[in-house]
Order: sequence, then C-alpha cells, then structure tokens
Amino acid sequence: MLSFASDYIEGAHPAVLEELMKTNLDPQPGYGEDEYCRSAAEKIRRACGAPRADVFFVSGGTQTNRLVLSAILSTCEGVLSPVTGHVNGHEGGAIESTGHKVLALPHRDGKLDAETVRAYLADFYADKDGCRHMVQPGALYLTHPTEYGTLYTKDELTALRQVADDYSLLVFLDGARLGYALATPGTDVTLGDIAQLTDCFYIGGTKVGALLGEAVVFPRGNAPKHFFTHIKQQGALLAKGRVLGIQFDALFTDGLYQKIAENAVRQADRVRAALDELGIPLAVPSPTNQLFPILSNDEAAALSREVVYTFWEKADEGHSVIRLCTSWATSDEKTDALIEVLRRILGGR
Amino acid sequence: MLSFASDYIEGAHPAVLEELMKTNLDPQPGYGEDEYCRSAAEKIRRACGAPRADVFFVSGGTQTNRLVLSAILSTCEGVLSPVTGHVNGHEGGAIESTGHKVLALPHRDGKLDAETVRAYLADFYADKDGCRHMVQPGALYLTHPTEYGTLYTKDELTALRQVADDYSLLVFLDGARLGYALATPGTDVTLGDIAQLTDCFYIGGTKVGALLGEAVVFPRGNAPKHFFTHIKQQGALLAKGRVLGIQFDALFTDGLYQKIAENAVRQADRVRAALDELGIPLAVPSPTNQLFPILSNDEAAALSREVVYTFWEKADEGHSVIRLCTSWATSDEKTDALIEVLRRILGGR
Amino acid sequence: MLSFASDYIEGAHPAVLEELMKTNLDPQPGYGEDEYCRSAAEKIRRACGAPRADVFFVSGGTQTNRLVLSAILSTCEGVLSPVTGHVNGHEGGAIESTGHKVLALPHRDGKLDAETVRAYLADFYADKDGCRHMVQPGALYLTHPTEYGTLYTKDELTALRQVADDYSLLVFLDGARLGYALATPGTDVTLGDIAQLTDCFYIGGTKVGALLGEAVVFPRGNAPKHFFTHIKQQGALLAKGRVLGIQFDALFTDGLYQKIAENAVRQADRVRAALDELGIPLAVPSPTNQLFPILSNDEAAALSREVVYTFWEKADEGHSVIRLCTSWATSDEKTDALIEVLRRILGGR
Amino acid sequence: MLSFASDYIEGAHPAVLEELMKTNLDPQPGYGEDEYCRSAAEKIRRACGAPRADVFFVSGGTQTNRLVLSAILSTCEGVLSPVTGHVNGHEGGAIESTGHKVLALPHRDGKLDAETVRAYLADFYADKDGCRHMVQPGALYLTHPTEYGTLYTKDELTALRQVADDYSLLVFLDGARLGYALATPGTDVTLGDIAQLTDCFYIGGTKVGALLGEAVVFPRGNAPKHFFTHIKQQGALLAKGRVLGIQFDALFTDGLYQKIAENAVRQADRVRAALDELGIPLAVPSPTNQLFPILSNDEAAALSREVVYTFWEKADEGHSVIRLCTSWATSDEKTDALIEVLRRILGGR
Repeated sequence: MLSFASDYIEGAHPAVLEELMKTNLDPQPGYGEDEYCRSAAEKIRRACGAPRADVFFVSGGTQTNRLVLSAILSTCEGVLSPVTGHVNGHEGGAIESTGHKVLALPHRDGKLDAETVRAYLADFYADKDGCRHMVQPGALYLTHPTEYGTLYTKDELTALRQVADDYSLLVFLDGARLGYALATPGTDVTLGDIAQLTDCFYIGGTKVGALLGEAVVFPRGNAPKHFFTHIKQQGALLAKGRVLGIQFDALFTDGLYQKIAENAVRQADRVRAALDELGIPLAVPSPTNQLFPILSNDEAAALSREVVYTFWEKADEGHSVIRLCTSWATSDEKTDALIEVLRRILGGR
Repeated sequence: MLSFASDYIEGAHPAVLEELMKTNLDPQPGYGEDEYCRSAAEKIRRACGAPRADVFFVSGGTQTNRLVLSAILSTCEGVLSPVTGHVNGHEGGAIESTGHKVLALPHRDGKLDAETVRAYLADFYADKDGCRHMVQPGALYLTHPTEYGTLYTKDELTALRQVADDYSLLVFLDGARLGYALATPGTDVTLGDIAQLTDCFYIGGTKVGALLGEAVVFPRGNAPKHFFTHIKQQGALLAKGRVLGIQFDALFTDGLYQKIAENAVRQADRVRAALDELGIPLAVPSPTNQLFPILSNDEAAALSREVVYTFWEKADEGHSVIRLCTSWATSDEKTDALIEVLRRILGGR
Repeated sequence: MLSFASDYIEGAHPAVLEELMKTNLDPQPGYGEDEYCRSAAEKIRRACGAPRADVFFVSGGTQTNRLVLSAILSTCEGVLSPVTGHVNGHEGGAIESTGHKVLALPHRDGKLDAETVRAYLADFYADKDGCRHMVQPGALYLTHPTEYGTLYTKDELTALRQVADDYSLLVFLDGARLGYALATPGTDVTLGDIAQLTDCFYIGGTKVGALLGEAVVFPRGNAPKHFFTHIKQQGALLAKGRVLGIQFDALFTDGLYQKIAENAVRQADRVRAALDELGIPLAVPSPTNQLFPILSNDEAAALSREVVYTFWEKADEGHSVIRLCTSWATSDEKTDALIEVLRRILGGR
Repeated sequence: MLSFASDYIEGAHPAVLEELMKTNLDPQPGYGEDEYCRSAAEKIRRACGAPRADVFFVSGGTQTNRLVLSAILSTCEGVLSPVTGHVNGHEGGAIESTGHKVLALPHRDGKLDAETVRAYLADFYADKDGCRHMVQPGALYLTHPTEYGTLYTKDELTALRQVADDYSLLVFLDGARLGYALATPGTDVTLGDIAQLTDCFYIGGTKVGALLGEAVVFPRGNAPKHFFTHIKQQGALLAKGRVLGIQFDALFTDGLYQKIAENAVRQADRVRAALDELGIPLAVPSPTNQLFPILSNDEAAALSREVVYTFWEKADEGHSVIRLCTSWATSDEKTDALIEVLRRILGGR
C-alpha cells in the first residue's frame, strides 16, 4: 500500500547510510569527541554563517526540546508556545516533567504572532504584584515549519525577536523539519537568518534523511553552563556519538540536506496541484512537505483503503482533515501513483 | 595507534549494518510500531524464556537507567546501588534529576552483597519513627557485568532477590554489557535466570555490536502504567523506532549476540594470560572483556604512547589502574599486536 | 482605611489564639505526633463522618495542592482543572515543578462541568495511538468555593464523581475557603458529602480563622504510600506540628469553624444587598464571602481612596471587576462603614 | 515526665506569643508585604551588618534548604555536604526531589573541613573529560551548629570560603539552631561574620523561640532571580506572612534571640558538668545546647523511664549514644531535676 503517513517511514538517505558503512571500523573516541562530529559541527557553523556556534548532536526532537528548554529556563520560568506547539500537546508532558510550564498562546496556522505575544506580556507585567505569583515568561518556542507545515517570514521572525528582546526572553526554534522550510520556493528565511534571530535552534535530521539525529545550535557560542553534562544527565548522550556525526557530516556535504528536502517539497507541490485541480480545500495553506486536505468522511474512508495517511482532526461532523506527507524518499512514481488514486476517488466531487 | 579504550570505539557489527541497508526503503510505522521491533521483541522473549515479557527499545544506557528507575520508584523512594554503580557516579545526576536519591552501599569488586543490603535495611527500619524522615528504599540496582567487569553468580543473585522480596524492593539489572557476561566461560547465570530473578533488566546493544540501542525487558509483562508515554516524555522515543528493532532483530538471529560477545571474551582471555605471564597484577578479578592491570606510572606512560586505554584510578602514588577493553570487533591480529607491545614495555619487570 | 482586600488580612480568631497560649508550655513530641494533632484529627473524622480518614496538617494552600497532586498522580499523568483553577494560574507553576501538567478546561463561573470533562476524555481516548503521546489524565482538581466564590451543588459533584469513576480519575477538592461554602445558606453540600464524593480534600484554616494551616483529608484511609515522608520531602512538615493541631482542635470544638464562617457570609450578604440596591452588577453570582462587583474605572478609583479591595480583572475598556472579601473577623460596624462608603460613591448611578 | 527530647517540644517564647496577640486584629497585606515583615527584615539587616541584604521568611528548615539549594544550584550541579548533613540523610530526599544530588563528604564531628573539600575538588577536576559525566559541584552546605552541636571557628569558615572562591562554589549555611551557636561562650563567629563569609544563610526561629519560621538572608542583596516566585512555587509562601514577621520582629527586639539562646547553653553547660563529674563520656565535644553522652544500654533503658531523650545511634553492642537537648524554655528547676536523675541512675559507675 502507498504510504504518505509521515516523513519518517523509511530509513536514511542512501548517501548517509553509505557513509556509516564506510567509516564503520574506524576507531573513534566516544561521546561526540570523534572527528566526524567535529567535522559535521564545522560544516554546520559554515552553513549557518556562525563561526562561534556551539553545536551538539542528539537523537530526537522531543529529547532536544526538553534538553534545551530545561537548560535555558531558570527556575520558575515557563516557555511561551502556540497552543498547537509540539511541546504543548504531543510530548507526553516532557517540558513539565523538567519542572517548567508551557504557557500556551493562540496561534495562526500554527504560528505565534508578535502582537499576540506582546499583548500577553504587557498584560502579564501590568499586574506588578500578581505576576510574581505566576509562572515567569522565560523563552519563546517556535517551530519552523510549524506543526501545520506553515512558514514564518523573515519579517515575522524579526518582529518576534524584537518582542523577545523587549521582555528579555530567549528564542528557541524547533527545526525538526527545518530542511523542508529552507527548500521551499519563495521563503525568505535562510539558515543564516535563523542563526541570527534565535538563541538556540535545531536542524532536524530524523525527518530529513537521517536514521536519527538532530543538530542543536547555539549560534553565538552561548550554550548554557554545563550543557555537555546536561546532555548526559538527560540520557541524551550517545556512547557512539559518531553515529550522529557521520550522518550530519554526510547531510552537510555538497548541499545534500537542501537537495533531498527540495525533492520532498517538489513532490508535495505536485500533490497540491492535483488536489487543487480536484477542488479539494486545504485546512491550512502549507507550502512545505505536509498537506492537510479536507475530505468528506466517506472520501477519507475510501482513500484509507489505498493510501496510508494520518488522520489529523475532525473538520465538522461530516468532514475530516487528513495529513499527506512527502519526504526525501518520495519518488516521482510514488507521487504519480498517489495522484492517480486521488483523482479516482475524489474526482467525482 | 592501537585502541583498547572501550567497547564502543567502532560502529556496528557488519551483519547489523547489512540489515539496516537491506530494509532501508521498506516503509514502516514510527515509534516502535514497526514489524522489526515486533520481531525483535519476540526473539528476545524466546531467548529469555519469558513469553509474557514487555520489551521496549531505547537509545542508551543512562537513558534506560533514568527511564526505568523513575518509572518503578514511587515518590520518596530511592534506589540502593553499590557506591561504584554507574547510576551513582557517572550519569551526571540522571537519577536525582528525576527526583530520586541513589542510596550508595559498600561494594565488593563492584558487586552488591545480599548481607550488606540486608543489614542496611534492618538498620533502616529499626528506627521506626526516624526512617519516615528518610528516603524510602524502593529498588535494587545491579550491573552485570559490573563496572569492574565482574560477574554475579546465580547464588548471589538469588540471595539478593530474597532480600528484595523480604523488604518489598524491586530488582533492576543494568545489562549495558550483558552479552559479555553471558559469553564468559564458567558463568552459571543465563538470560533466563536474569528474567526470573529481576523485575526489569536491559540487554545492552551499544556496547555489544549495535550502532546504538538497549532492549528493556519487564519479564512478567510488568511494565509500569503509561510506560510508552513515559518513554515519550523522557525524550527516549525514536520516531524511526525501526532503527533499534532492525538491529536487535539481527543480533537475536542465529545467536549473533552471544557469538560476537564470545569473541571479545576470548580476546580478553588472551590479554589476561599475557599479563599474568608478565607478572602484572590485576586490580579486580574480572573474567569478562574488561581488564584492570596495575602498572607503574612509568609503564603506564610508556604504554600510552602506543595503545589507547582508559585511565581508571590511582592505585598508589607510584601506580595506576588502567582499563583495557576488547569487543566484538577485536581481531586476533589486533590482540597479537597488543600483546607484543605489552611484552616489550612490561617485560623488564 | 477599611480593608476588604481578602480573608487573610487579620491574624487568628481569638479562641484559636487563646488555645495556643494555654497550651504553650506543654511539652509535646514534634512532627505532628502530639496529642493536639491527634485530637484535631479525630474531631475532623467525626465532622466528616469518615472514621477511617487519614488526616494531615500542613501550612498553606499551594503547599497542599502540590503535595497532594504530586503524591496521587503517577508519572506522565496530569490534572484536569478549570482554566481558572488556582493550580493553573496562581501558584507560580507549583504543579509543573513537581513534573505534572495542568490540563486546563473551560469553566463556568469557576466551576468544571461534568459534561465538559466527559467530552474531553472521550475525545482524548478516541485517538487510541495518539493519546499515548500525550499527558495522561490522572485526576480532577475542583475548588469549593471556587476562585469566583461560587459553589457546586451536590448533583454537580455527583456527576463529576461519576465521570471520574468512568475514566479512573481521582478527585481532589481544594477547600482553601471550605468553611464559607459549608456556611452558605442554601448549599446542599455537607462536609460528609465531600468526604464521600472525593478521594482527597482539604479544610482550609488560613482563610477561615487560623494563623495558618490546612487539614488534608483522605476520607477512606487512602493516603498514598509514604505520605508522611512526602510531607517531609516537600518541606511541609513542621517540627512544631502542634501549632497546626492546636488551631484545628480549637476550630473543630463546639462548631467554631462553621460559626465564624457564617459571620463572613452574613456580612457578604449585607454588602450584596447594598450593591443590588445600588444597581451594581456582579460579574459572577457568588453566594459566599467573595463579591465581584463591576464598577466603572472612575468609581473603582474613587472607592480605592477609602477601601482596600482587590483588582480582579478588566471587564471592558471602561469597567473593572473588583473583589470585596469578608471574613470571620468582619464586624457589623465594619460592614456598615463599607456600605456607607459604597452608597456615597456609587449612589449617583 | 521530664523531656529533653529536643528544642521544639514547647510552643513559642512568651514575648513572641504576646506580640502575636497584640497585633492580631491589625489588618495587613498578605504574602510578606506586611509592616512586621518589613520591620523584622530591617532589624535582621542591622544585626548582620548587612544593609543590602535580601531577607525572606519561611516556615521550616527542610523547606528552607530545598528552597535555597534549588534556587542557587544550576541544572547539573550538586551540593557538597558532610555525610552527616541534614540535607543528606534526614530530609526524605528533599534536595534530590528538586533534581540535585547531595555529594556527601567525610565529616569531622559533623563539620566539613576545607582540606577535605579542596582535595575532593582537585581530584574531581583532574579528570578533565570524566568530570563532565559527573554531577558538577555547585555549592557548599554547612550547618552551624552542626547536627552534632559542634561549631566552626572563624578560621575554619574563612578557609572554607577560600576553597569555595577558588572553585566558584556558593556557600550556604543552615542555621536552624544559629542562636545557640551565637550564644555559646568562646565562639569567635558572629552573625556579621556569617553574613560576610556565606552567600546565603538562615536564622532559625522554630528551634529558638518561635512557633515556626526561619529567616533566609542573602547578605549582599544577592537573592536569585524570581526568588519570591520560587517561594510561591515551592509552597513556602504563607498568605499570612505576618505570622513570621511578627515573631522575628519580637525575637530581634532588645536582643531577645541572643538572650533566650544563652539560657539554653547555660543549662546545657550545667548538664555537661554533671555528666563530666559522673565520668560519662560524650560522643562529640559539642559546646552548644545538644549533648551526646554515651551510656550503657542498661543505663539508657533506666534513664528512659524518667526522661524523654532522643536515641542517637549505637556506639557499640553494649552502648548507645543519646541526645539531651535544652532550649530557651529549659528552667533551672528542670535542669536540677534532670541532674538529680542522672546522678541517681549513672552515679554507680
């Protein structure tokens, strides 16, 4: 059966696997002290235009979110997140388990809006005495692309940075799917912009061609005190750190990371065009590798017999929002096959 | 330079890597719901003689220790560990960061002794009022092999189980190097024994032939409530859970796990014999893949110019304990080369 | 200046203080093992009709909430609270600091509605796979009276208990102002009902006549394992536990707790009648000792020059909700004075 | 029966209680914003010679220890404590429950020795790589008097401060019984010295004449960010903060704190002299209000029929260490009675 369930249904990009094969018997020190981690970190610094950046490699997205937020937030501080933020609903309470509250704010297509944040903060500090009884705002949590596949513009990120500066908040950007953002035609946000506008972000590997792995970047060499120990304490330090270094080294050689993400976005564009042609509305205008068509429940049921997708949410009693997801591994043929099915099932509208 | 620094200096056993290659493009659901994880879990259940066991796969040892202990300990409970236990000194406070105290007890060559534990508990509960102001003993933490490469006998494990039962403690066994224990000639402890005598244990992959990965086993289907969510919350749930399932599936096919561990122990035996012949004393009588010779500081310095090893601890002002570690990847030739160096440098004693 | 700022602006009811004086030099064991704690616990058991209840005394409300919730919630469980619940917004992240998420639900005048809770839970468990990535619902948090001074009816509490049972949730009731609830004419909820319909609740002392102190009741002898140690661990165990026992012993002698709460409610009734007569609307129909009139900003400013009150929230650009609070200590004369001021300032409407 | 069980068997010093009576109906703002807290803080600043000190009032010792240590330690940092430190064994894991390890070091009569600390730290940092896998030393925890009633000299405290400075540690001094230290003839450590040599300390009220309460002092205005919110979050903020302010205001008026402590020490001196005369050895040379005689088990049993004391620990199979404790409330007559009993029971040696 065709699967467009997620961007983590396959293993690694072949070039990544091959690098793991080639280096397999080369003896290296553990815990990220190997030469591959060093090389990968250096390539990432260059790609970010951030020569002083601290770069660390860890296994997964939720791990990174709890690791970074628990390290950058002080006691009594919480993190501002759109209510749809991954840290708010889909991490089993990871942030709270480190002692910090997620302060959920209204979203717009998965994005936080600078004015929403500013209004919240102005209101919070207006009650000078009362606010001391409440969780202190300590950081902004943004995802790019968001959980809805949408993208911030450079202006939007700059405005959020401004609010953050005005209220002494740190900015952390979750880039679990960052490659797909950077590869989307029309985006005006570069990796360099992200390095300049945030205090920490991560470059997702798991969903963009690696077996596993995320590269955490503190762009101005601003990793918190004891961050290596923190990785260890959180159980996030791999003995064979090389496994992550080798993969990111491959991904950041000859623009592979960008290239494989472009494929995903191109395939998504083709599906989007087909849905558009069929008159199928999208719940969110996402330009990246995730599409959220609204189907009648009957259509969704028919489709599920031929395509694996993710049920997203109820649109209304008779309709469902589903998610179709492409990846670095989606071939033209696979997309052709999907479009053929979509036309057959949804064509009669 | 020759490296006997640890059992995680290389990548994965070739058969494991090959399996990752072969399955790479097979689409699978995420989060450990894939068929490889299912198959690996079933093979592990069979190898343990524990058909009802709950089996989970996670990335590393410290991660497993904090995950399991924070799930099985109640609020206010601590874990009894030998003072040399990995959880006590080498995990950056991982257990404490989940809110639980490590109650360190004296060790014998890295092992906890049933009588030591019993005496501690008798003493603890003797002060009926006072003990309510103290951390409540909730579980025993054992490593097998220990941090010193030593092994429990079946009688010793049985005696510890008995104390645990007498005082309502759970028993958790850290098997980061479990393969090397099972492969040591003369051990009378089988995987089945461990499944019978503990409430939870893990089968180490990272140090026994995998790129990364540990298999957590609750042998009587006794995983704590919400354990899946707990894995998620702790950041230990890989999106591509397949990466772990595929590797353990390979390791538990045709006895590979046992076979590659046997090689490590055999190579260590050869080094041990050579050290013995040279009259070099060992700090601990470890029969597994880790050796702890005591060298003069001059000898240690000379050796370090040709062999990468781990400095373990000072023996006295003029002597050092070092660790030499073999693995599944140590070839006869590499061991020959080490022995040649040892004879040359230490022969003049 | 007249102060109606809160029900904790004075010290203790004179009868309570007197008891502290009388017993002052009587030597007693520490940590709640004294005879006064025993006597007070017994009187509370009787008042609740709960002869097997476990009763503990601690210092304050936030302390009790974090103590109880962290003890009754399992790892990965969160607590369902109305968004207005004290634990959600006004405790500086106390619950999160113990590792648990507050799952905020819509409220009605500060109350949780059984149907809202049921719908949330049905929806949560409908996504069988997805819900395992989310915080697990573990308990309901109710306040009675609520933060808005409103009261549950017995039917409402019974319906909530039913939902809780259907979904295996525990019910915890925050009774920081419980006396004022029990003393309100027309309520059909008794202390005995609360003991029957909850798994844990507390009887507030700080806001109802004590210097400090709350009595935590597990009505069926169902205190969690190690609860005494938990109190100690949380820093909530007073060396001179007698200080709390003596006060609750006094409050539960000859119905003092009920009597002094009745005074507060009677005085609030008088103020309510005066506001009603003046045509001042109330933001919430609270029948207890807290009143929430909506004033124009000018009226509020004028009032603030003669009466200390609490600013509650903006009603709209031109209006504010304020809180006026009576207590056991509010005399007829003080209420007369307030009414006189209210008539003078608000009379011109 | 005569009780010398502890220094918290009675209520408050009469002058303290009287102040609570006198101020009882005076309306005051909550949460420590009242005028009594302000006045008490000012008197404490003066007594410490620390005009810029931040002063907070909380309920008890364990609460203070977890509050302060969790606020001053960064993630991954632990606190160095003598193995006998209250935080290490007698607080139910309070410090660990906030995520921090207690790093227990050998003691001398309950005291930490600068050289012991220095050797530990030198050793720790000597393993440059390895130490990053371990809990980072963040603060020193000292008690004065110690759990054994012993006192630091000014030289000893100065040497500890020097080590702390050399290794960037903060110094926190637990003064649960500080009054008794300051009132001991021959001590060369003043309140001013403590304010100069520590980063935070607390002045114990519970055990020195208050119903409850400890004054936390950050002598250079160096309270951590959000400390007020931290008190709230930890459940340590009393709504009627006045209760603590009034008591400390009384204790720091006309030298009352010092005076009542002097009585305790004088009575202890009398008991010490009597024990000495009887040839009863002391386990520890404590010059303050706690005495630790070593009795035969038969003597201890006989004494227990007439005097309430605390069993401290086994000395050997046939002997026990017990604790006799005087307080501000111990009268000459009570001490006479104790001495008479001691002579009768222990006279036959």
